[in-house]
Amino acid sequence: MPDLPGTCAERPFARTTAQTATRRGTKLAAVRDAYPHRLELQTRWADNDVYGHVNNAHYYVFFDTVINRWLIEQGGLDIHGGSVIGVCAESHCRYAAPLGFPQTIEAGLRVGRLGRSSVRYELGLFAERTEEPAATGWFVHVFVNRASRRPTQIPEPLRAALERLVTTTESG
Amino acid sequence: MPDLPGTCAERPFARTTAQTATRRGTKLAAVRDAYPHRLELQTRWADNDVYGHVNNAHYYVFFDTVINRWLIEQGGLDIHGGSVIGVCAESHCRYAAPLGFPQTIEAGLRVGRLGRSSVRYELGLFAERTEEPAATGWFVHVFVNRASRRPTQIPEPLRAALERLVTTTESG
Amino acid sequence: MPDLPGTCAERPFARTTAQTATRRGTKLAAVRDAYPHRLELQTRWADNDVYGHVNNAHYYVFFDTVINRWLIEQGGLDIHGGSVIGVCAESHCRYAAPLGFPQTIEAGLRVGRLGRSSVRYELGLFAERTEEPAATGWFVHVFVNRASRRPTQIPEPLRAALERLVTTTESG
Amino acid sequence: MPDLPGTCAERPFARTTAQTATRRGTKLAAVRDAYPHRLELQTRWADNDVYGHVNNAHYYVFFDTVINRWLIEQGGLDIHGGSVIGVCAESHCRYAAPLGFPQTIEAGLRVGRLGRSSVRYELGLFAERTEEPAATGWFVHVFVNRASRRPTQIPEPLRAALERLVTTTESG
Repeated sequence: MPDLPGTCAERPFARTTAQTATRRGTKLAAVRDAYPHRLELQTRWADNDVYGHVNNAHYYVFFDTVINRWLIEQGGLDIHGGSVIGVCAESHCRYAAPLGFPQTIEAGLRVGRLGRSSVRYELGLFAERTEEPAATGWFVHVFVNRASRRPTQIPEPLRAALERLVTTTESG
Repeated sequence: MPDLPGTCAERPFARTTAQTATRRGTKLAAVRDAYPHRLELQTRWADNDVYGHVNNAHYYVFFDTVINRWLIEQGGLDIHGGSVIGVCAESHCRYAAPLGFPQTIEAGLRVGRLGRSSVRYELGLFAERTEEPAATGWFVHVFVNRASRRPTQIPEPLRAALERLVTTTESG
Repeated sequence: MPDLPGTCAERPFARTTAQTATRRGTKLAAVRDAYPHRLELQTRWADNDVYGHVNNAHYYVFFDTVINRWLIEQGGLDIHGGSVIGVCAESHCRYAAPLGFPQTIEAGLRVGRLGRSSVRYELGLFAERTEEPAATGWFVHVFVNRASRRPTQIPEPLRAALERLVTTTESG
Repeated sequence: MPDLPGTCAERPFARTTAQTATRRGTKLAAVRDAYPHRLELQTRWADNDVYGHVNNAHYYVFFDTVINRWLIEQGGLDIHGGSVIGVCAESHCRYAAPLGFPQTIEAGLRVGRLGRSSVRYELGLFAERTEEPAATGWFVHVFVNRASRRPTQIPEPLRAALERLVTTTESG
């Protein structure tokens, strides 16, 4: 994972990197249409911090809200009593432009890689009437047995829901 | 707690271990002593999510709490009226073991790269009486003019405070 | 304010009190129609606490979200630079039934009393397809000068927006 | 900080002062010493809202943090698997002075009424080196069976812990 934002140092909001995510030599645009699932998300008064915009940590709240709603509504995830749950193993966000209450945000979700027991989601957050994302990120869920918390195969209804979000690209 | 997602059998994503962060060919341990600044952080009832542990997004709340307290207390950052503020351009977290209320956490902070207008912090979160981090992450601040929100040189008292956290290593 | 929940002790979710709010000898129903402004609010993954439902503190986040959106969208409140801001002086919530992610909530808002510099809002939160509120509460804003933080007369566009939410009742 | 909304000229709502809470004709001071249990609480960067102080909803996060830590550490409450859990039935807060990150807060906790299955806590939040509370509030827990969610008698170790916080006063 080449996770050094080296180019970021003096060009913090460089759109060239915000607009594309390089993965294994391929490039996937982060424009809205590149996300097969999209969901409008409300901001809240308390999201804004002292600098007047949504606090950086809340972007991850948006991420796992759109992810878990997909898993619940499309994959039948039972967050209260199901035997398999998804735990976050890794997450990342690149902030390109501020968002702020009372804006409504559109979140885009796709699956970048689907493994036996884990999945890597890719996300974009968009302000209304903008094509360029205000933020892009990714988030890794490992599915584990609720009791033992050991990795387990993704059960079928969940896998089917995740497969519908897989995006494949041939080249960059 | 034997349930680390980081130990999952298939290791689906390229990763170093939770204990090391690769940066330009060097390796910096993520053990407590590798962080020159450490701060105890309290957890709160509301941090725990439905799965019984601190929600993944709150780790970033811990990150910018320890960072901003350093900037305020050591660097004289004036979050209410100062002309220069730090905005988050990128953040990342790798989760190795769960944390949960009512635990007390120790956060470790160091500076991995200090540029003209930006800084990359590296962080570790530790449960009590453990040497291995429950989570490691990094966080990029770009310092901008409060009014124009354009990148600006890090002013002197802040730079001096950040320099005290710079850790350099020669090899891995 | 007779604020002892004495009747609550052994009948915690007693609907008789949840359904009505006694105020100065009058009773206002807390059914949906009793709130002139209503807004759908999304829940988020992180709202749920370890007991599986929206944490009690988040109900107040819902309250000031619906309140501030009204002030901004209908009254022209400028939260970033306006000379008058609303600060919370007192708040209260009675919880009648649980709410939980991924539910969508409907919030109801009315004004119970409108003073020279302050306003008391009354709120209800409803699960979908229910007539009885899951929670009722109230919230007092005092409008102050942003710089001095001293109470100030509610400016005209805000007052007009608030007056549209005033509900008066003659008897109970 | 002279900007207490509580001192606003018109005093629009019937209230006692921030320093006293009237209960059945008795008055309990809200000074620090009136709370048998006190706990320091850290603020976090994300607590501050756009107006520069801790958001009103977070005061309730402070409340249930100090309450639940007492129940866990003194009363043996098992929040993950215990058969009895405490759910919030009602809460209230009066805000007298602002609090803000990076302040450390002292929370005071006492029990105002202890019933068969419910308890009413009274709380005060204090800035450092102040005798007058920045906020006072109360919070009602009803103890219920985890599975049925029906009220149940407070089990013995919890009751003993709560009894140690009961404060009784004879007159005002």
